[in-house]
Amino acid sequence: MPTYRMHIEYLGTEWHGWQIQPDAPSVQGAIENALETALRYPVSITGSGRTDTGVHASGQVAHFATDEPIDLHRLMASLNGILPSSVAITQLSPARDSFHARYDAIWRQYRYRISGLPFAIGHDIRWHVKPMPDIEMMNKAAQDLLGTHDFDSFCRTKSETKNRVCTVESAVWVESPSNPGHADFEIRADRFLHGMVRAIVGTLVEIGHGKRDPDCIPSLLEAKDRKAAGYAAPPHGLMLERVGYPGE
Amino acid sequence: MPTYRMHIEYLGTEWHGWQIQPDAPSVQGAIENALETALRYPVSITGSGRTDTGVHASGQVAHFATDEPIDLHRLMASLNGILPSSVAITQLSPARDSFHARYDAIWRQYRYRISGLPFAIGHDIRWHVKPMPDIEMMNKAAQDLLGTHDFDSFCRTKSETKNRVCTVESAVWVESPSNPGHADFEIRADRFLHGMVRAIVGTLVEIGHGKRDPDCIPSLLEAKDRKAAGYAAPPHGLMLERVGYPGE
Repeated sequence: MPTYRMHIEYLGTEWHGWQIQPDAPSVQGAIENALETALRYPVSITGSGRTDTGVHASGQVAHFATDEPIDLHRLMASLNGILPSSVAITQLSPARDSFHARYDAIWRQYRYRISGLPFAIGHDIRWHVKPMPDIEMMNKAAQDLLGTHDFDSFCRTKSETKNRVCTVESAVWVESPSNPGHADFEIRADRFLHGMVRAIVGTLVEIGHGKRDPDCIPSLLEAKDRKAAGYAAPPHGLMLERVGYPGE
Repeated sequence: MPTYRMHIEYLGTEWHGWQIQPDAPSVQGAIENALETALRYPVSITGSGRTDTGVHASGQVAHFATDEPIDLHRLMASLNGILPSSVAITQLSPARDSFHARYDAIWRQYRYRISGLPFAIGHDIRWHVKPMPDIEMMNKAAQDLLGTHDFDSFCRTKSETKNRVCTVESAVWVESPSNPGHADFEIRADRFLHGMVRAIVGTLVEIGHGKRDPDCIPSLLEAKDRKAAGYAAPPHGLMLERVGYPGE
């Protein structure tokens, strides 16, 4: 069966996350409905991973297979015409038959946006943190996240995963040169556990507020207890930015 | 009476413009209500100019006077606590008694955002134009807006203003290096007529789509007839970015 890959951008504010579910609007559900409307037969899509209610994506990746080859240019225009303005298909391309958006992904990159100053434009994608945490202290602490660790302390306890080992490739706070008071946290890892980025950001902000020692990360990881780490930062500051595949 | 100056950022989506009016929520009205709640007496504010329903601002300026000197740091925190997240007071400072946000302003700068590619993040502040207009052609035409002209052809006919002469200091389209398919139009003038930026953007986009000649601007200006120019671009792409005052 012909297999295709799509890149999806969505503003998570009005969606109950990526994953399809009964009785609540999901991004996956909206796209599957749009595909059925456009193609006139039901199509299931598989995303690179779930995002929670209220979390955004600028580069979610999904794959799907169709009964017969399709005109991708036309389908993309149709889908974007059918979908509400909070969801956009930004790329649609042929993939090899065995391509799997989730199993083939080798890394994911998230961005978490904060501001320490009052702002209104972008209030749906950026967390207003008062006062602004110390970026240097947060970056010092973030260094200890790098490498391969068991991230059990940064995983929501209800998660079904048993293996909680992740390899963090990069984790850094970057201040915006054009917008004083704005800072973004960029983190890339082979995989992320449920609630992991929000727990990391919440913990780093506590460090940046002087409530925890910048050297506390190794002992938090060692504790393997969600209660050892900080609170979860709110979902609206988080965005799935990119998903990496071999040879790209 | 002690006079103060405030800088205001707002997402215009849910507001019926800047100007206070009966039976419709306005940004000015929201701020005056917040001031009355914080100070316990009514205060009127005067903005640098109106913005239409749905138009945003990152740098609106207003002034107001109070009965007695106030603690600005505390007032700003109170106002931002009271106001909804779509309005933020970004600066609050003392001004000389005679300062007038509207009469003292020597220029205003607006930004109009468009995208020719599908997108979802920022869909409330950027107009999706299909297909992307030719930036070079639009910039060629925009050159003819520079200088002092009667902009009657770019003014909503119902406007009460008689003098329609404006001096445009700069008018340029800039493509986003980080976001392919995104482009912003930046325009600065001593004053703007009602609906002027949106009429200019609509006309330039028609030029960029090849529907009008890039050399048409001088004859449009000469016509002094709103019907001679193009359609008005939608309000949600427009943002009042900065207001200039002497000696700053």
